[in-house]
Amino acid sequence: MGTTDDADRRGLSRRMLMGGAAVATVATSLSPVAAQEAVQAVADPVRTASAGGSVRHLKLYVEKLADGRMGYGLQKGEASVPGPLIELVEGDTLHIEVENTADVAASLHVHGLDYEISSDGTRQSRSEVEPGGTRTYTWRTHAPGRRADGTWRAGSAGYWHYHDHVVGTEHGTGGIRKGLYGPVIVRRKGDVLPDTTYTIVFNDLTINNRPGHESPDFEATVGDRVEFVMITHGEYYHTFHLHGHRWADNRTGLLTGPDDPSQVIDNKIVGPADSFGFQVIAGEGVGAGAWMYHCHVQSHSDMGMAGLFLVRKADGTIPGYEPHGTHGAAKPKGGEAANEPGAGPGGGHRHH
Amino acid sequence: MGTTDDADRRGLSRRMLMGGAAVATVATSLSPVAAQEAVQAVADPVRTASAGGSVRHLKLYVEKLADGRMGYGLQKGEASVPGPLIELVEGDTLHIEVENTADVAASLHVHGLDYEISSDGTRQSRSEVEPGGTRTYTWRTHAPGRRADGTWRAGSAGYWHYHDHVVGTEHGTGGIRKGLYGPVIVRRKGDVLPDTTYTIVFNDLTINNRPGHESPDFEATVGDRVEFVMITHGEYYHTFHLHGHRWADNRTGLLTGPDDPSQVIDNKIVGPADSFGFQVIAGEGVGAGAWMYHCHVQSHSDMGMAGLFLVRKADGTIPGYEPHGTHGAAKPKGGEAANEPGAGPGGGHRHH
Amino acid sequence: MGTTDDADRRGLSRRMLMGGAAVATVATSLSPVAAQEAVQAVADPVRTASAGGSVRHLKLYVEKLADGRMGYGLQKGEASVPGPLIELVEGDTLHIEVENTADVAASLHVHGLDYEISSDGTRQSRSEVEPGGTRTYTWRTHAPGRRADGTWRAGSAGYWHYHDHVVGTEHGTGGIRKGLYGPVIVRRKGDVLPDTTYTIVFNDLTINNRPGHESPDFEATVGDRVEFVMITHGEYYHTFHLHGHRWADNRTGLLTGPDDPSQVIDNKIVGPADSFGFQVIAGEGVGAGAWMYHCHVQSHSDMGMAGLFLVRKADGTIPGYEPHGTHGAAKPKGGEAANEPGAGPGGGHRHH
Repeated sequence: MGTTDDADRRGLSRRMLMGGAAVATVATSLSPVAAQEAVQAVADPVRTASAGGSVRHLKLYVEKLADGRMGYGLQKGEASVPGPLIELVEGDTLHIEVENTADVAASLHVHGLDYEISSDGTRQSRSEVEPGGTRTYTWRTHAPGRRADGTWRAGSAGYWHYHDHVVGTEHGTGGIRKGLYGPVIVRRKGDVLPDTTYTIVFNDLTINNRPGHESPDFEATVGDRVEFVMITHGEYYHTFHLHGHRWADNRTGLLTGPDDPSQVIDNKIVGPADSFGFQVIAGEGVGAGAWMYHCHVQSHSDMGMAGLFLVRKADGTIPGYEPHGTHGAAKPKGGEAANEPGAGPGGGHRHH
Repeated sequence: MGTTDDADRRGLSRRMLMGGAAVATVATSLSPVAAQEAVQAVADPVRTASAGGSVRHLKLYVEKLADGRMGYGLQKGEASVPGPLIELVEGDTLHIEVENTADVAASLHVHGLDYEISSDGTRQSRSEVEPGGTRTYTWRTHAPGRRADGTWRAGSAGYWHYHDHVVGTEHGTGGIRKGLYGPVIVRRKGDVLPDTTYTIVFNDLTINNRPGHESPDFEATVGDRVEFVMITHGEYYHTFHLHGHRWADNRTGLLTGPDDPSQVIDNKIVGPADSFGFQVIAGEGVGAGAWMYHCHVQSHSDMGMAGLFLVRKADGTIPGYEPHGTHGAAKPKGGEAANEPGAGPGGGHRHH
Repeated sequence: MGTTDDADRRGLSRRMLMGGAAVATVATSLSPVAAQEAVQAVADPVRTASAGGSVRHLKLYVEKLADGRMGYGLQKGEASVPGPLIELVEGDTLHIEVENTADVAASLHVHGLDYEISSDGTRQSRSEVEPGGTRTYTWRTHAPGRRADGTWRAGSAGYWHYHDHVVGTEHGTGGIRKGLYGPVIVRRKGDVLPDTTYTIVFNDLTINNRPGHESPDFEATVGDRVEFVMITHGEYYHTFHLHGHRWADNRTGLLTGPDDPSQVIDNKIVGPADSFGFQVIAGEGVGAGAWMYHCHVQSHSDMGMAGLFLVRKADGTIPGYEPHGTHGAAKPKGGEAANEPGAGPGGGHRHH
């Protein structure tokens, strides 16, 4: 799958997603990053999220893919598994017009965000989308703050996700199994922004709905600030493990400072609909390498729930890595190379 | 099940549990809330727990129910699944006289609290109760503080639970399966108090031992401060998910303030004997609605591990909700309506 | 197994491990505690870890045991399941020369620490050890601190573990199943040091690879500061439960003080390769007793995933405990008595 031409074409479409004058409306709908980047590109300090509060509009298509999978896409014919990353900052509102091009009713249910029951995406609330139909879901977010009664209200920031809640069963078991899911990140003003975001979904015994031994690889250069969003779906519990890199078991995956008591981990038990995220500095303290990530349930990794975090030196080489064999170049990548329609973005999402 | 007459009668018995001059001894044994409420009912700030330190006495009956289940109850013939909510404040001591009216040995084992080995509730410590017998278990709690060696000792506050440790196997597998379990909340002085507390127990593939598609619903009005205690028992792992509401993954489920790094979640992986709790403001930021809660393991929700958090407008209506069909009024409610003996309180517990 | 003579002999060998002039090189390779203890033995405050920064060398043997298990050992013929506890302080570097005496390739893969890809211990990185061969793995650790970009970098401190990644499958499923795993603790300068450390590994349906009903027991005297390192391996999820004692669900298992929002628990869901640790004051607030620890998945505990934390009074007695029957003296202990080669240290590790 995914020839170089395909990859370039998709890479372009993905970049269009995140910026570029021609599609500015879409770009600002999805990313709080663009404005910041122009200003801070030359600065030494890390980039951080600016304040939210904007109202955005987005179109999302539900599609059946040729191989039987289903996906969400920002353009017709561009559905991917996982679906596109949706980024917001606390305070933002997003109106998503979902067009269902499939031949079964489908929906959009989101975790973590504020929405009225009419945007729940369940049959029971009559908020699904019939075949050929269209429905607008509204997601709102809010910053933390003190309530009138003196208690502290949490903000919306977090690593969340969306998925179908209708296909197959009233819990969307069929839709989720086929690929109707995607990541949502809500950032807080001041949150550290990554260079690249990758999405890893353990869905039943697949990663991003790819069969065993075709799991996506993810690429970076030593020193890149790489963000992973990890989502689980389906039937099984898993343990997500990443070699050579760690994160904090808290909201951002980053410690707030020396007093943050959170456990730092490199392995985490997860079950269906759990989601978390974190940022690593690629190769920090360990250097370049083909670092495995995998489910640590032994039979799951043995069946192929494993891929590579390919961390390159500045010269592009990876010590000790020969890109063939079990985790070699013959299979689709989760990064640039894996971005063909129907299979990509495969979790890849670069911030320019 | 549960006619209105039944519901009223049970509603009365439950209210007796929590207050009312006629049963003042029982009421003060169970709740630190009563005194507070009289004083602060008109005040704007949230109610908080007063200091602990009292010594209380409670009688608990182990009973076999007509349908084969077993339960703990505060009165003969009033056993429920889950058993009654027991609330304490750090510093309190509770002496529980357990009378075993069943025809097999049973016991009372608690998580999180301080007790001597003679109150362990295990066969191995010879602290079970023979059929027809009586045994007093003593639970103590303590506030946090600094030890003589300078280290910090955690307090007893938490969302805990009790269960049988003897019926069927030396780990109480049979007793737990039949319903011998219940919630315990230990509050810290100053902890925010809820308006209502509901208990949800994922026990094997049931919720509160009710068969699939008869799962309890829970009721509230927009703005109510509703507390959920979530306990897991049995064989399986689950992921607890609540639509439209979130909580912090920490001791109270509430953030302590802007510096609390805890992840805010709406989905959590749990296994047998795990327990946690949290408070939500019903409908906050999302409004009234029939909000689903369910296990997010797809086969589990499809088999019926799902119910509704019915959040009403002040006028009593719920937008988009028609109380019949899959989650309709024909089935027992976990709130007011489900409080028949042997089936209730079903987790319902209102603070008056 | 394990006569008194055996136990004494092993007790000696274990003590040699941790101190004593005759094996000073090995001792300082493994423990940051020794120097501290001499100074602070008479002081009232708790002992804490001194600063790291040393470079240490260690030899580790991979061995097949007579009964088919495999283990890591510090001396030839002394391999144990779990393998020896390796303790470091942030800043330390450890060079481990692994000699593979088995007839299959094996490796050493560590969680949480810094190592270059050549020390990954995977086939894919060609860092395994052939039968009869030797390979040096280098582990580095670092203290937390602020990066040049202003963000906070977490330190290496944590309850980690090492295991084979090669035997049987490319994920070491066969090696782990047979016992090729062990605990690693990285302490932070100032971390509280325990009197004793015990390791509990839930590996498939065994504890420390012992069959059901031969699970290790662990011993202490009321007031001892006992540390547990809890690791999971294999196929299954579990819930680790300890009677009468609790811990905080954070980095150290100890609250940092009154503002630490971590949940205090006595039951935790875990999956393969998860690890955590905590310290308890044996019998604090509850007294002496034979306190059970067990997996709380009901079928797992019923099949024997249960042992005892034997907390003695100062006079050596344990109220209500008769050391025979289900959890009696006839089976190997995880503490002093279980320290025979091939079966021990069984997690026992006393700091002298």
